[in-house]
Amino acid sequence: MGMDVAGHVSGERLCADIEHNGEFGGLDGEGRGRTAPTGSEANRRCREFLRERLADAGLVVRVDAVGNVVGRWEPPGASGAAVASGSHLDSVPAGGVFDGPLGVYAALEAVRAMQDAGAEPSRPVEVVSFTEEEGATFGPGLLGSSVATGARSVENALALTDEEGRTLEAALEATGARGEGRLDAAAWDAFLELHVEQHTRLEEQGVPVGVVTDITGITHCTATVEGEADHAGATPMGPGRGDALAAASEVVLAVEAAAERRAESDPAAVGTVGRLDVSPNATNVVPGRAELGIDIRSVEADSVAALVDATEDALAAVESERGVTTTVETDLDLDPTPMAERVQDAARAAGERAGVATTPLHSGAAHDTMHVAGVTDAGMLFAPSRDGVSHSPREWTEPDDCADATRVLAGALAELAGA
Amino acid sequence: MGMDVAGHVSGERLCADIEHNGEFGGLDGEGRGRTAPTGSEANRRCREFLRERLADAGLVVRVDAVGNVVGRWEPPGASGAAVASGSHLDSVPAGGVFDGPLGVYAALEAVRAMQDAGAEPSRPVEVVSFTEEEGATFGPGLLGSSVATGARSVENALALTDEEGRTLEAALEATGARGEGRLDAAAWDAFLELHVEQHTRLEEQGVPVGVVTDITGITHCTATVEGEADHAGATPMGPGRGDALAAASEVVLAVEAAAERRAESDPAAVGTVGRLDVSPNATNVVPGRAELGIDIRSVEADSVAALVDATEDALAAVESERGVTTTVETDLDLDPTPMAERVQDAARAAGERAGVATTPLHSGAAHDTMHVAGVTDAGMLFAPSRDGVSHSPREWTEPDDCADATRVLAGALAELAGA
Repeated sequence: MGMDVAGHVSGERLCADIEHNGEFGGLDGEGRGRTAPTGSEANRRCREFLRERLADAGLVVRVDAVGNVVGRWEPPGASGAAVASGSHLDSVPAGGVFDGPLGVYAALEAVRAMQDAGAEPSRPVEVVSFTEEEGATFGPGLLGSSVATGARSVENALALTDEEGRTLEAALEATGARGEGRLDAAAWDAFLELHVEQHTRLEEQGVPVGVVTDITGITHCTATVEGEADHAGATPMGPGRGDALAAASEVVLAVEAAAERRAESDPAAVGTVGRLDVSPNATNVVPGRAELGIDIRSVEADSVAALVDATEDALAAVESERGVTTTVETDLDLDPTPMAERVQDAARAAGERAGVATTPLHSGAAHDTMHVAGVTDAGMLFAPSRDGVSHSPREWTEPDDCADATRVLAGALAELAGA
Repeated sequence: MGMDVAGHVSGERLCADIEHNGEFGGLDGEGRGRTAPTGSEANRRCREFLRERLADAGLVVRVDAVGNVVGRWEPPGASGAAVASGSHLDSVPAGGVFDGPLGVYAALEAVRAMQDAGAEPSRPVEVVSFTEEEGATFGPGLLGSSVATGARSVENALALTDEEGRTLEAALEATGARGEGRLDAAAWDAFLELHVEQHTRLEEQGVPVGVVTDITGITHCTATVEGEADHAGATPMGPGRGDALAAASEVVLAVEAAAERRAESDPAAVGTVGRLDVSPNATNVVPGRAELGIDIRSVEADSVAALVDATEDALAAVESERGVTTTVETDLDLDPTPMAERVQDAARAAGERAGVATTPLHSGAAHDTMHVAGVTDAGMLFAPSRDGVSHSPREWTEPDDCADATRVLAGALAELAGA
């Protein structure tokens, strides 16, 4: 049956939906980019179009209190916990058209393929679009899935504010995206998300579909270095200078060096100082303060811990050697998340049945599936990203790859749903 | 006669003027700080009070097209090129009350002391306040002196704009500070500026007056490092990363190391990366771009050149080792400025006559005298800054030190003016 379902996937139908969605907030003259953040008019139109397309396929649509959208296909004979699939429709500013929408519309295409194949699943199938995955407007990201999995309360989520102080609640209401109740991901029997890889591993291997084995653990730290702001001309070189930027530069390089060493044995280990804010940040003033935003990841918890230790050692070293003072706080600490074996197995088997090559790989990025995996069996598929680019109008995934990945998704969902 | 003049300097009268001036834009609850930038109401009141005090002492006041204020004392028998002294009244935001005003009111106090002593100088004496020394509002700093020395045209200066796009011309007109003509510093026979040291050398030596030997040369460069912004999680460590911040960190440390090495033989050599702007500057994105604001100084031109070379070498090294691309531009390039020997001699001799200890030192900061020295014989005196602090409400110079420095100034001006 799985083979049959995959054969009914229409790449044209899928890509037409993605392209149509990409027009909302679409960027002129910048390839296929779009800006459709949560609470925007573009996002409102994305949601409206999704509800139309879900209804066109006969799915029953519901929207929860934080704007998570679910389309439910419950054919005769289906009962029990649903099998679910989906992703998100919000984008970063000037983001790509595939990041998120591919997973939402591939899930819908998988349902349409099952319908066209005359599949008779024993479980309902739900197509989901989570609110504010990117965190571009209302903070921490993975928001809708954090509520759907109980990691964050509805009230807490609705009270989040954007830079202008508008609450998520107001933004959802203004865009007709506020529903009722709370989507409960724990009620799903299984979940499988298709997403663009956002890296070059599939492209380099020439394989159209990745079956994700683990989602990386992520720790975000904010470190501060307090030195002493002083006149760049009147303050001689030497120990009397408390140059916070020079101290911070040592920390940047120490984080990088520690991650490079760790990556020799654990290729998923990465350490990045992505943010550095200097104060007063004037050419002619010795920097008095620097704040570093540090991102540490691996699928191995030991590696994350080792890189956090290395960061703390680097801060201690500049304290003792440079007479600056430092602090470090952990802003985010997500454990590595293994994907459920039975969902990975279903994906691999679906690939084999459909004649689509798959390869195992880890996800270095966080995804809504990270939250869902905490409450039910979950997995992910990746489709290739040209040049690894995402969060950019240059983001691109070939239509054939979109279709192949959706064939694997449809076959796996059919198997998981007992079709 | 010099001895006599110094004996008529009144520390009380001087400090009363400085304190009164410090009330304009004075900061509540932050010690003696003030905010009196060019074009502000506080600056207008500073100018109004100065004109009153100059007139009180019988000086003839004129204001030029860029707001430079001059009070001219031309006693009977005085003729020829004037001897001038002064500094500036504008402040940085939340600056100190001595930085600038000490030099202006000390010059006036020196004239009053000469008058009280019955001095009969053969040359007129001028008290000057230059516009926009700090550059806090209308850009590059040392503005009034740059116009008075012909380094910048009146028209160019008046067209400078603040962050809101207001021109200097409009700001001067709004604050009654716009006069006519152009003050010509080249017409002066000699110039001597008293300023706070803004460092701790005098305090550490316990000497109340520094006689400046040289004003540092200053080069400002802007360097850019272009790497490749990428997902911090999905981009493995290794040569495929184009982390512009890590590359910039190497440059920061290389500039510091080169300056430390140079300072072993040339203690005036300093190199500082005071500004670093990272893009996109998000914790979870590998930095794609970094821009560095680099400040290099020494009283020896060879040292400045060597540190610029070291900066370029560091940029070339990260280009070849990290695959980033770099650029560097020179934004400012001021040669070291030696002070006129005869003005230094007059200051040292005045200290000896007045029984006030002096010590030679260089200025690591730029001052209006840097421009004036290009068109006539010029010199500077420094008074001690407590803890070396300036550009802060914590800036402080002891009243006794203000008075001692003004005694040396008065004696030196009297000698230079042939009193």
